[in-house]
Amino acid sequence: MGEKWVLMKTAQTPTNIAVIKYWGKRDETLILPVNDSISVTLDPAHLCTTTTVAVSPAFQQDRMWLNGKEISLSGGRYQNCLREIRKRAREVEDKERGIKIEKKDWAKLHLHIASYNNFPTAAGLASSAAGFACLVFALAKLMNVSEDESQLSAIARQGSGSACRSLFGGFVKWIMGKEDDGSDSLAVQLVDEKHWEDLFIIIAVVSSRQKETSSTSGMRESVETSSLLQHRAKEVVPKRTIQMEEAIQNRDFASFAKLACADSNQFHAVCLDTLPPIFYMNDTSHRIISYVEKCNRSEGTPQVAYTFDAGPNAVLIARDRKAAAQLIQRLLFYFPPKSDTDLDSYLLGDKTILKDAGLEGLKDVEALSPPPENGSAQKYPGDVSYFICTRPGKGPILLSNDKLALLDPETGLPK
Amino acid sequence: MGEKWVLMKTAQTPTNIAVIKYWGKRDETLILPVNDSISVTLDPAHLCTTTTVAVSPAFQQDRMWLNGKEISLSGGRYQNCLREIRKRAREVEDKERGIKIEKKDWAKLHLHIASYNNFPTAAGLASSAAGFACLVFALAKLMNVSEDESQLSAIARQGSGSACRSLFGGFVKWIMGKEDDGSDSLAVQLVDEKHWEDLFIIIAVVSSRQKETSSTSGMRESVETSSLLQHRAKEVVPKRTIQMEEAIQNRDFASFAKLACADSNQFHAVCLDTLPPIFYMNDTSHRIISYVEKCNRSEGTPQVAYTFDAGPNAVLIARDRKAAAQLIQRLLFYFPPKSDTDLDSYLLGDKTILKDAGLEGLKDVEALSPPPENGSAQKYPGDVSYFICTRPGKGPILLSNDKLALLDPETGLPK
Repeated sequence: MGEKWVLMKTAQTPTNIAVIKYWGKRDETLILPVNDSISVTLDPAHLCTTTTVAVSPAFQQDRMWLNGKEISLSGGRYQNCLREIRKRAREVEDKERGIKIEKKDWAKLHLHIASYNNFPTAAGLASSAAGFACLVFALAKLMNVSEDESQLSAIARQGSGSACRSLFGGFVKWIMGKEDDGSDSLAVQLVDEKHWEDLFIIIAVVSSRQKETSSTSGMRESVETSSLLQHRAKEVVPKRTIQMEEAIQNRDFASFAKLACADSNQFHAVCLDTLPPIFYMNDTSHRIISYVEKCNRSEGTPQVAYTFDAGPNAVLIARDRKAAAQLIQRLLFYFPPKSDTDLDSYLLGDKTILKDAGLEGLKDVEALSPPPENGSAQKYPGDVSYFICTRPGKGPILLSNDKLALLDPETGLPK
Repeated sequence: MGEKWVLMKTAQTPTNIAVIKYWGKRDETLILPVNDSISVTLDPAHLCTTTTVAVSPAFQQDRMWLNGKEISLSGGRYQNCLREIRKRAREVEDKERGIKIEKKDWAKLHLHIASYNNFPTAAGLASSAAGFACLVFALAKLMNVSEDESQLSAIARQGSGSACRSLFGGFVKWIMGKEDDGSDSLAVQLVDEKHWEDLFIIIAVVSSRQKETSSTSGMRESVETSSLLQHRAKEVVPKRTIQMEEAIQNRDFASFAKLACADSNQFHAVCLDTLPPIFYMNDTSHRIISYVEKCNRSEGTPQVAYTFDAGPNAVLIARDRKAAAQLIQRLLFYFPPKSDTDLDSYLLGDKTILKDAGLEGLKDVEALSPPPENGSAQKYPGDVSYFICTRPGKGPILLSNDKLALLDPETGLPK
């Protein structure tokens, strides 16, 4: 078949949300963190990146398309990932199609990459984590790389720190490591997604008029100027990480919630202690925290944990479906959709929770009573853009259905 | 004249704003802090408390009126101040009126106290600091107490921690002290109000719908739950206090601004690190910080320092009148008065700055151009309730003009 063949693989990789936060690098290029972090992987059915990688002797250069638009691969982070994965490439043979790529050929062959997020890239939902994890995972499959997920995570880490945690499902720990070359700074799975199946997750995508500080420059400024960051990294997080691992192992939601909330707040405290200060949370984020704290106090034991990344969106982890149903009632009471929005486009992901909450349509939302713990509560329509309902989910998978590939199998160009 | 006489004194005491923050007590009853703090005293012409204290054998009990309304003196903080000052009372004689009070008489005599703030009590402008300082200062004068201002500050401290810093003008340091009885936890003047006359202060009283956590309960919760507070108190503040004293002595505005802003942000970071987290600043506070940071960066050297106490109000310290005029232009551009508000009731205190800024009326405010560093800036009318323009000011004074007394000289009751 000459030199016209295109060989490709398509993978799907989840996003993750940290419950013990990563904030601050000790090495900017290798992306080595100042402390361990722990995350929960989100169900890829609701939030994931799909990436198709292709190789062909016909390709003239490495090219990449993100959400249908070509982007540059010249940045150091892409280059580091491509270089590291190419180093580990092995012989690949497709006997049926008569294709054989020798180990040494990989250095000369060019790649086409197409990636797509099933959620808004700009919404601050860790798209780069899923993206780099998916890129590295898909390339590893294409190149027949023998390294396991942990070893791959150390490569994905060089694209985006939090990407290393998207190589596994369930709960994942990013071990900061000690080596200067970063070889021991990688992710391990603590428990898989079946270990704690009760948990239910609601993400409030918060409307924001502010342009946010990127997490890369934000954490650099924190490392340089915050007098609290090193204390957090050296004294606070190591103890918290051990306690969080225990809470996860024991499915101890009260401890889990206390640690996750405290760590989210401390991360934002360090941002505020940065010069100039960084504000990721806004008044809506603060309100959501106050509602959750009030609700947890009135219930006597935590029903919901909150955590916020480098933006105003709230990730709310409910202890079980019942708590999630009560949570969505409260959230929709405080933050109803604007009059021109229907419930179907306001609540995305796993919509079955609506039925549990007795909410079939907008009329039911309008009829919601104020939460008992906050009788004189004000409503803020429009302050939340939409909600996504999801759960802890599985790690990366290879998609064998060729129809799901994002590149044309003949041309290697986006479909 | 029998037992009908009333003897009284009237004093006026300024508020103060901390530039190195007090947050956290090591002793709740004596009000002993976990770190030193430094404040600037605000001009009492614009923000002050006036207190008249009276004694008469005709009084049946200790009574107090605050802003015209009788309040209870049964609280521990009032009782501690009254007890401590009574202990130090000495013989008082008014030969003209034939009045003589022996030292031992003070234990039996009752007091009437009337206090008035020339600014809204609820606006979060340190009314309790000025209030307790004025109470102690006025009683010390009435009772012929020989203790100096520093020794009096240790009594005022037991009413409200920050009150001890209102016993002096200019820049004041509250030394945390080491003794268990609090005898060495008192205020000293660093420099008087003439030392750094260039400074100009603009307070933005920020509209807020939130009910705020009281600073008393807030700092208790921070001490109990924040893992960053002790690090701040032990490691960060001691160095910062020395640097701040130097900056003040040298009138080094760049260092002063850097330290004041950093310390305000760190105090709010500790609040955020508290469980449950405490939010004193809101989106408007955050916006003001961003504008000041942007402006300072574009000027190359700091023109304005910001500091926020336990509420959303911004206290902005401009390096001189020129910087203050530019600041008020920016502030009125971003936060114009609502259409039903005139400039005269929107900008209180020293209004001469308006002329420097070329702003004679609302038309001039409407005609303001966007600040050069922020060309596409949005306006937020209504997000600031009003501004107060002021300067560093003098310490407590005794008012000799009887017309300014708040109690009737015959009855000892509020006028």
